[in-house]
Formats: sequence, C-alpha cells, structure tokens
Amino acid sequence: MTRGKQLYEGKAKRVYATANPAEYVVEYKDEATAFNAQKRGEWAGKGATNNAITAHLYPQLEAAGIPTHFIGQLSEREQLVKAVSIIPVEVVVRNVAAGSFSKRLGVEEGTLLTHPVVEYCYKSDALGDPLINDDTAIALGWATEPQLRRLRELALKVRAFLVPYFEARGVRLIDFKLEFGTLADGTVVLADEISPDTCRFWDAETNEKMDKDRFRRDLGGVEDAYAEMLRRVTGPAQR
Amino acid sequence: MTRGKQLYEGKAKRVYATANPAEYVVEYKDEATAFNAQKRGEWAGKGATNNAITAHLYPQLEAAGIPTHFIGQLSEREQLVKAVSIIPVEVVVRNVAAGSFSKRLGVEEGTLLTHPVVEYCYKSDALGDPLINDDTAIALGWATEPQLRRLRELALKVRAFLVPYFEARGVRLIDFKLEFGTLADGTVVLADEISPDTCRFWDAETNEKMDKDRFRRDLGGVEDAYAEMLRRVTGPAQR
Repeated sequence: MTRGKQLYEGKAKRVYATANPAEYVVEYKDEATAFNAQKRGEWAGKGATNNAITAHLYPQLEAAGIPTHFIGQLSEREQLVKAVSIIPVEVVVRNVAAGSFSKRLGVEEGTLLTHPVVEYCYKSDALGDPLINDDTAIALGWATEPQLRRLRELALKVRAFLVPYFEARGVRLIDFKLEFGTLADGTVVLADEISPDTCRFWDAETNEKMDKDRFRRDLGGVEDAYAEMLRRVTGPAQR
Repeated sequence: MTRGKQLYEGKAKRVYATANPAEYVVEYKDEATAFNAQKRGEWAGKGATNNAITAHLYPQLEAAGIPTHFIGQLSEREQLVKAVSIIPVEVVVRNVAAGSFSKRLGVEEGTLLTHPVVEYCYKSDALGDPLINDDTAIALGWATEPQLRRLRELALKVRAFLVPYFEARGVRLIDFKLEFGTLADGTVVLADEISPDTCRFWDAETNEKMDKDRFRRDLGGVEDAYAEMLRRVTGPAQR
C-alpha cells in the first residue's frame, strides 16, 4: 500500500490518498492536544495504541450493523479506510455527566444520566467545536435532516454495542465522540476513531480515569492508562 | 385587584400572588439588563411599553390557537395572568442570524436562515442560560419529551403568527425568546412577554435595530425605538 499525497492533517491523525480514489490511508500521530490545541503533548506509542484499539473495535461494530470506514490495519500506526467526506457535525453521546457538560450545566461530574444525551457540535477548530442542534445544522447546510436522523440512530447503536462491551471488561463508558462521513454514493458511515482520545473511560471498580482526561488534567500515568485500555479492549470479557 | 405577596422578582418583572391562587399579577419594571445582568440601565416608560405590547399581542395569539397565561391588563405596568410554574427551558426562535448565534457559529449577522432554528436554553442566571438540547432537558428533568414537543409546536405557531404580523407593520422579526409555564392541570401555556426586550426587530426598509440591542450595544435612541415599536405593534397593518 503506497501512501499518496497528504489530504488532511488533524490534531491526532493524517489522511493520505492512495492509488485507489475510494480508499485513504489514515496515520495515527503520537501528538496529543486538548482544550482546542491550547495544551499540547506527545508520547511514544500513543498513535499505535489508538490505532490498535480502533482497529479492534471497528470490525465488531460493522458486525453489529454499524457501517464504518474501516478496511484494515496496515501497520502499527496506519489504517486503510474507505474515502469519505466528513460530515462537519461531531456526535457526542453521554451516559454520565463529565467534562464540559458538567461545567456548562452545573451538574456534578459522575452524575448518572438516566436518559442518554446525544449532542451535536459543529466541527470547527476556529470556533472551538460549538454545540449546535438539528435545526442549526440544517439551516447552515452542515447536514441534512435524514443524515441527522441517521447520525443519531447510528450513535445510539454504537452506544448499545460499546456500553456492555466495556462493562464486561471492567470499564464504565462515561461519554464518547463520534465522527461520520459519507461515501461517494451518499451512504453515512462511522469514520474517525474510538479510543481514549475520544471516549471517557472510568475503571468500574475505582472510577479511576483511563483516558485523555489524565493528560488534560495533568493526572499523570497517561501512557499506562492508554496501554491498560488497549489490554482491556483487546482482551476477553471478564464477566 | 389587590396585589398579594411578591412571589418572584426577575430582571424585568415582578410576580405577585392574588386572592385567587390560580391568578398572579405581573408588574413590568423600568430596569433593563443585558449580558446576564452585567450591564444595567433604566428608563421611564420601559415597563409600560413592554406591558402594552405584550397585552396587545397575547389575546391575538390566543385567538390564533396558542394558549397563553394572559388574562388582562390591569394598569400601565401591571397584568393579570394565570398562575403557572415556569418550565426552565427558554425557547429561542431564529429567522435571521444575529447576536450570540452569529458569534458562536461564525455566521454574519443578517444572514437569512432558510430553515427556522429553534434553540433551547436552560433558564439559569448562574450559568448564563446555557444552550441545551431535548436529550439534556429530559435527562436533567427540566422538561418531559411531550412538553418539549409542545414547546416546539407552539413556538413555531407563534412564529407563524408574528412574522407576517410584523412584516405588515414594516418590521423584520429576526429572532425571539419565549418562556412557557404549566397550569395546575399540566397544560402548557405561553408565559413571560413578547417585546423589544425579548425579540430582535429590524426596520424592514433600513434594517435599523428597534429592540434591546440598542441598549446592549449602546446605539442610542433606545426609548424612541421602544416607543416606535409600540406604535407599530398597536397600529394597523400597512401592507
């Protein structure tokens, strides 16, 4: 697989063309950023860990009826994916109040949400990924009404798969962020990654954080936490 | 009508009990606040103007099939209303990008929204009325799913009445904020006010602002603008 021209560089990944216009190579970087890139870091193995976790989960999501962009892992830090146009609406699913949600709404971190919360954010570094709703996405042309219905449906399907998956591995899935894209024929597929960069994972016994909050909040042990999450994700169900 | 105990004091109004537990008196104040009460002002006639505009519009909204809390005007600055519990979800309807929407989303003020945008904010001075969505309101117990469906339905009905009403009086209705409450039997009714405090009004010919933005942005002529809006609202359709 020969990497062609770089098409896009994000905060955590680079996307390259291939000889096949329907396929891209995604490279996972070792850089970490937080708070809209105001905080920056890097550690060896981060890209490989997130690549491995995503490569382990996406085929299982496909099998659970969620179309994804994933084709296969190419190397420690590379994946082959279907070429998509990213829909500029990030989808955040929350099971437990944490992070910006807690702060914005004055709800103590750790509060169980009895009704799952699906939020949309406009994918814009310049604007800090502001919260939007369906009407705004439609009015400003960022997604169509049927696409938004599909995003919500797929996001809740991902939740239905992931919550018990992690629970069986001693991890509480607090919240997670998904990105979707469209194939050339308009089909909406799950893109991006699912990793400690894009999810909040708390240990089921201790509530210890096992995700990017260790980096955001300078809690230490960030490499160990990512490595432990890789072990749990790829390991068998414990209960 | 004897005013009883003061039940509530907001930024622009006071609410009093009456001898009838099913009725309240609302008093419109002359104080103006903006940016979550960080900016304060006051002018004689403000309360009377907003009271008169609301008292003129609410019976027409009732006649158009929108249940409201309004019973009747009592005095220059007082109304008799049905006793409601306010639903802590403010409903903002946007026809044209302006204000916080423009700023948050990088959309130039004045951009026509081809699809109307209905936004919900959690009514909380302490938190600055943060933007929320349906899921959040339900998860945190601020409104039920049927109530939210009703809020949206009524807000769009109010829009359908007000847009041509103001258009016929040479005014563009840019956006507006509504509050709803529930009667003792659970019926959702429109509460609060509709005035230059809660709407953006632009002159149809000149796009001159005729609303609280004159106060927020120190544009001058705020009293004249409110008085002119009262004249137009209570005057006949011009076209």
